[in-house]
Amino acid sequence: MQTGDFPGPEKKFQVRKLEILDINKGFIELLKQLTICDSVSHKEFEERFHEICSYGDDHLVCVIEDDKSGKIIATGSVFIEKKFIRNCGKVGHIEDVVVDSSARGLQLGKKVIEFLVAHACSMGCYKVILDCSTENKAFYEKCGFKQKEIQMVKYFT
Amino acid sequence: MQTGDFPGPEKKFQVRKLEILDINKGFIELLKQLTICDSVSHKEFEERFHEICSYGDDHLVCVIEDDKSGKIIATGSVFIEKKFIRNCGKVGHIEDVVVDSSARGLQLGKKVIEFLVAHACSMGCYKVILDCSTENKAFYEKCGFKQKEIQMVKYFT
Repeated sequence: MQTGDFPGPEKKFQVRKLEILDINKGFIELLKQLTICDSVSHKEFEERFHEICSYGDDHLVCVIEDDKSGKIIATGSVFIEKKFIRNCGKVGHIEDVVVDSSARGLQLGKKVIEFLVAHACSMGCYKVILDCSTENKAFYEKCGFKQKEIQMVKYFT
Repeated sequence: MQTGDFPGPEKKFQVRKLEILDINKGFIELLKQLTICDSVSHKEFEERFHEICSYGDDHLVCVIEDDKSGKIIATGSVFIEKKFIRNCGKVGHIEDVVVDSSARGLQLGKKVIEFLVAHACSMGCYKVILDCSTENKAFYEKCGFKQKEIQMVKYFT
């Protein structure tokens, strides 16, 4: 039996929406493990947070907080694109998934993906997509994804 | 010298934003050449049109109209994703690019891509991305794109 003092694994690492105070819990530092994420001030974070919130359920950023350390140890986002094709269908785009290097092997990435996929499904999307490196392909296959197309990019800076 | 009666090629196929009356100009029929796009009623089109418009410059659908036939012969879209990474950067996502089968070879696809890329750039994006089949890779390379990652997909329906 589980008590409030000793949460079981399913309670321990719960996925929740990003909150504005998460900037004090290492959210930006976590993103730095993914890519360049320098010098985001509290003001810039708050402005971007509110911009994303203004899309309501069409843009969701989720996190996992480590109850013990109070640090954000996993995150990911999904936004809902509204199309004309597929009978005015919707597509979920998963972006910026990262798990803290000290918290690998705990299935947190899978939890984040399942949360984002469930959100896209609940929003009525006909599919959910993401771009990843070939070395992460096996992980996403375990999450039920299949390789389809190739990603092309053009950088401005 | 060019006159209003005889527009030159640069005036002939101008890219513009999607307008609500474009449903009467074969816009949905054009999308059917890309993928499944059945039974979109005028009401559904208008609802989706207004939903997309509500994002302002963050979601742009563009078209090329053939002045002669009054038909929409090319389209594409881009939406602007707001991120925390890259110092609260933005990314342009290009989607649903198609040129009418009777209008191939006129560089209309290139015009559409250039329009969407310029929009993403003007919105302050640090990059613009798209997913395509390997057979379309060469076209996007001509437009200045490079292959980077792979696309993974999970279908709900």
